Amino acid sequence: MSRVNGHNWKLTLAYDGSDFHGWQIQPAHPTVQGELSDAIERVTGERTLPQGSGRTDTGVHARAQVASCILKSPIPPENLQRALNRTLPATVRILSAEHVPASFHARHSVVAKTYEYRIWIGSEQRDGLCPPWLTRYVHAVTWQLEIGKMQRAASLVIGEQDFTSFAATDADLTTRLAELTSKTAEPVDPEAKLGNIRTIYSSEFLPPLPEEPRLLIYRVRGNGFLHHMVRNLVGTFIDVGRGQIAPDYVKHILERKARSAAGPTAPASGLFLDSVEY
Amino acid sequence: MSRVNGHNWKLTLAYDGSDFHGWQIQPAHPTVQGELSDAIERVTGERTLPQGSGRTDTGVHARAQVASCILKSPIPPENLQRALNRTLPATVRILSAEHVPASFHARHSVVAKTYEYRIWIGSEQRDGLCPPWLTRYVHAVTWQLEIGKMQRAASLVIGEQDFTSFAATDADLTTRLAELTSKTAEPVDPEAKLGNIRTIYSSEFLPPLPEEPRLLIYRVRGNGFLHHMVRNLVGTFIDVGRGQIAPDYVKHILERKARSAAGPTAPASGLFLDSVEY
Repeated sequence: MSRVNGHNWKLTLAYDGSDFHGWQIQPAHPTVQGELSDAIERVTGERTLPQGSGRTDTGVHARAQVASCILKSPIPPENLQRALNRTLPATVRILSAEHVPASFHARHSVVAKTYEYRIWIGSEQRDGLCPPWLTRYVHAVTWQLEIGKMQRAASLVIGEQDFTSFAATDADLTTRLAELTSKTAEPVDPEAKLGNIRTIYSSEFLPPLPEEPRLLIYRVRGNGFLHHMVRNLVGTFIDVGRGQIAPDYVKHILERKARSAAGPTAPASGLFLDSVEY
Repeated sequence: MSRVNGHNWKLTLAYDGSDFHGWQIQPAHPTVQGELSDAIERVTGERTLPQGSGRTDTGVHARAQVASCILKSPIPPENLQRALNRTLPATVRILSAEHVPASFHARHSVVAKTYEYRIWIGSEQRDGLCPPWLTRYVHAVTWQLEIGKMQRAASLVIGEQDFTSFAATDADLTTRLAELTSKTAEPVDPEAKLGNIRTIYSSEFLPPLPEEPRLLIYRVRGNGFLHHMVRNLVGTFIDVGRGQIAPDYVKHILERKARSAAGPTAPASGLFLDSVEY
């Protein structure tokens, strides 16, 4: 990690997750990490695997994902940004490229993350139909939703809590465990020692935008998120909004510490990694 | 076409052209006409090829394309709309389904069409980069554009004129000719007898939206459009905005009646068929 071997880089990037099989590199499918790694190689001639602040799943978007990597190349930051943007697909944009101290690691140094989830509340009538060019970027629902109740439910997840009920239990978790315990000489992810306990600093539905009143945006900021956690929270809040469960039932779901206690996983399309703090 | 054989239907639909190889049905590729035909068959059991108001190319979007077809099924209009939307991909939405007189034909009955073309004027700096989720729906440019000059150029194409200079000269035209002269027992397209003369009723760049000042929208309404005509007009207006040619040079381009006289074809992604009038 010493300066002698090159610069440590922090890359901030936006992407449209629709075309990618998530962040993490895979042999047979296009991924954001794979595109970025290839682009860096085309620009600098160096093969490296940039580490992200965390994985995003297939179809999940990012407004400002952060990745770090070490490069020997002496290329100036602005030139690296420009050169990467010229060679990357237009659905991945490098917002900035900066030199950072050797101690910086995009995943291990994370202090907080913010996600947004976009719900389109429509109907089957002409004016309520979700426009085709929004379907990749929202979860379109036709139910009536009681926003006040959803806001109350959202407030109940603030604080330091065990989010086991909102964590994925599927095969992905096995993959994640394997990722944490093998493969690289990197120190184990500091999130691993938290178990399923995370601290949520804010969790709220934003006031509707005047130009698009049918778009309901949920925004959540925390020190870390379990796999599928935001989508499971939103799936549960939608159950609240539809009247399937009472807002305060969310307390009970948290206490149960069982995925089966919570609502369904909302689709990937509505989810945006908004920003990462260090 | 008589009522005895069924109802004549007018379907109004919106679509995201990104995933489709244009409107017109093709054997090996997903097309909007193909999806619609399949959906109608799944709902009614009837195989029909709905006729569009015109073709849109790969990547071109529609806010309100119109298609017509005859169906024997007695299904009520609202039910047809709902059933089609349930079975179509989310990137194609039926906005309305109506019974129309037997004389109505989505292409032959057109009185006027309106297109919009969206240009994102950005830069290579962080705040100027085109967001990845807009790239499918705009033409992103990083040039400085003089909008006043573009507005002047746009005004010069209003009226009844020969638009040969703005018509595609490529292989598509051969396809189009074959389409007009063979295949079906339909009357020849009434546009065919116009040659390359069309009447443009309005042609202007709209005032910027306060919430998105970097989005420049061109709107054009006319009695018909040649293949690639809007994209060739926009490519030429961008040349004007960049200072490559003077606004009044557009008059000369029209007089030349040669595709080579005009600017490049702007990309499909920025183009929306906005509406069709009958």
